[in-house]
Amino acid sequence: MDAANNPKPITDAERIDRLRLIRSDNVGPRTFRSLLDHFGSARAALARLPDLAQRGGASRAVRICSEQDARAELSASKKVGIHLLAPEEAGYPPRLATLDDAPPLLGVRGALDTLMRPMIAIVGSRNASGAGLKFAAQLARELGDAGFVIISGLARGIDQAAHRASIASGTVAVLAGGHDRIYPPEHEELLAQILATDGAAISEMPLGHEPRARDFPRRNRLISGAALGVVVVEAAQRSGSLITARMAAEQGREVFAVPGSPLDPRAAGTNDLLKQGATLVTQASDVINAVAPILERPVMLPLREDDDDPLQGDPNAGDRAQIIGLLGPSPVSIDDLIRMSGASPATVRTVLLELELAGKLERHGGGLVSLI
Amino acid sequence: MDAANNPKPITDAERIDRLRLIRSDNVGPRTFRSLLDHFGSARAALARLPDLAQRGGASRAVRICSEQDARAELSASKKVGIHLLAPEEAGYPPRLATLDDAPPLLGVRGALDTLMRPMIAIVGSRNASGAGLKFAAQLARELGDAGFVIISGLARGIDQAAHRASIASGTVAVLAGGHDRIYPPEHEELLAQILATDGAAISEMPLGHEPRARDFPRRNRLISGAALGVVVVEAAQRSGSLITARMAAEQGREVFAVPGSPLDPRAAGTNDLLKQGATLVTQASDVINAVAPILERPVMLPLREDDDDPLQGDPNAGDRAQIIGLLGPSPVSIDDLIRMSGASPATVRTVLLELELAGKLERHGGGLVSLI
Repeated sequence: MDAANNPKPITDAERIDRLRLIRSDNVGPRTFRSLLDHFGSARAALARLPDLAQRGGASRAVRICSEQDARAELSASKKVGIHLLAPEEAGYPPRLATLDDAPPLLGVRGALDTLMRPMIAIVGSRNASGAGLKFAAQLARELGDAGFVIISGLARGIDQAAHRASIASGTVAVLAGGHDRIYPPEHEELLAQILATDGAAISEMPLGHEPRARDFPRRNRLISGAALGVVVVEAAQRSGSLITARMAAEQGREVFAVPGSPLDPRAAGTNDLLKQGATLVTQASDVINAVAPILERPVMLPLREDDDDPLQGDPNAGDRAQIIGLLGPSPVSIDDLIRMSGASPATVRTVLLELELAGKLERHGGGLVSLI
Repeated sequence: MDAANNPKPITDAERIDRLRLIRSDNVGPRTFRSLLDHFGSARAALARLPDLAQRGGASRAVRICSEQDARAELSASKKVGIHLLAPEEAGYPPRLATLDDAPPLLGVRGALDTLMRPMIAIVGSRNASGAGLKFAAQLARELGDAGFVIISGLARGIDQAAHRASIASGTVAVLAGGHDRIYPPEHEELLAQILATDGAAISEMPLGHEPRARDFPRRNRLISGAALGVVVVEAAQRSGSLITARMAAEQGREVFAVPGSPLDPRAAGTNDLLKQGATLVTQASDVINAVAPILERPVMLPLREDDDDPLQGDPNAGDRAQIIGLLGPSPVSIDDLIRMSGASPATVRTVLLELELAGKLERHGGGLVSLI
């Protein structure tokens, strides 16, 4: 399906069901997709959750978000101008919708049109140098003039410089917490400016969610995933911007890096990215030329999992024990699990889903899973 | 022939003949090689020079260096410790000897052993930044510690920083003028230090030759040609260091560049080199790892031109006129000339040699020629 050109609204009832499912315990975006694909609807999946989690060995009853709570969140969101959008709806950034861990419902505030336009992410150090800030602003302005929306994390340093320079042309802030929990707080005014000028803010978190340290790497996948490519302007070694760059690479997005002196620790991360094959950026045309061929291809939503291969009704105890025995803290691929266990793909997938809903399994990118 | 392991001294008589030939009008390194290959010895070539130049249309008699002048240069050079070495002799940098425009006789002063060791060139801006100077010194020191000789151009800025930092481990200065015409003059003391500490200086120019602007690009090919690779530390756009980098690429040498901020004009040239595929350097290991596989291969001297295909005794006037008609100020390949003229390869090569000796033809790299 061409995500950008064929948006399709979902019903309010469906929205409530999906919200309940994603706000229930142990249901992340990947589990959500798996449940939806296999049970055909969020409502059917909700009905099966307690049973699946129990078979996966949940020590206590898994909390399921009530219809009342979902309605309350939806109405509170609406009141402050937040749409909770499904990947197939207009206003959900088309490239973000193609991720296998795309948020099932994305909290969107601001100009929906802007979110449908091609985006470039600009990210970098919070404690950036004057030169870094100046370059980020210059690049954001030139990319904005060339028709690209600038997406970033609303952080101090490079992020805010990129946002500010692209307010006139369109910019999108990606939040790690709820829409009412802006971090850092001193950027609330910047966000207001962005929203007042055809910009937008997006978050996958509910209202009231205070961003914690672990929410930022998770948020970073949305910055890279919504964009054609990520430009890292300044980054020390082991910095958050490098996580965004790694996610961009895993998502098949272009990775760009701005060079710097080997004696400048704020360039250590970007120079490393360049050694690993990132595209070197000294001017906007370096980015524009690299993404031009990608822009011409339609944005396709991923195919659903094969409907002809439904979940196993109830895997037998031997299969379940064997599959659990093959799992450990190191990620292993589902394909390997199927081969090594000798069980059917449907059985393996069912056992994994049970474990996941019991809070015992973690899904990684590339079809890898591990025990928590 | 493995140049590094089988050096072979030439006789004094042969040295005098070769010196006369290369110091004669219109004989450059490429013509020299062509003459030596086809006439078998410098002496035989000298005997043919007036005749060939006249047929090429020389307007006046071509000056041939006398035996007396050659003996005088040789003896004056010896007096100040300069060896005039042929490519096959010990002390002639083995990789330099492999160039098709290697100096037929190289003026060498200092430690011959050092000139036989693997070299890395470090070059860059004359008006370098403090960070550039510091990095050049650090890199030179680390490469020196790893066993590499540092070769550079004795210029202000990056060059002198690289030399100074590698005096203890071995460094080679390549001069654009004669050995007694040091540029800039204030680096005479640095050169004395280099020579006093197992370093060396090389030049293809005779004693007394004052370096002119056009001698520097010509000299740069010796810096890159003698080295495994060239590291450009800082370079503005259209700077001399970029000429050295281009020559390195044409010679099949590794090209390395140090990244810098897009806002720093002194990094514009190096960032451009990186965009063109140069290897990014932030530490010595980036260079060492890249040249390690090359170090393992023997250094081979190029084969002589085919002896079975001698020069044409006297091309007829029609052939000569036709070949001259095909030439112009834009470089054209000798292979194309042979095909387009329909003349034999021997005839084309003979006419080109005549034109060259008459001062009417310029040879470029890659078998290209043009009228002057």
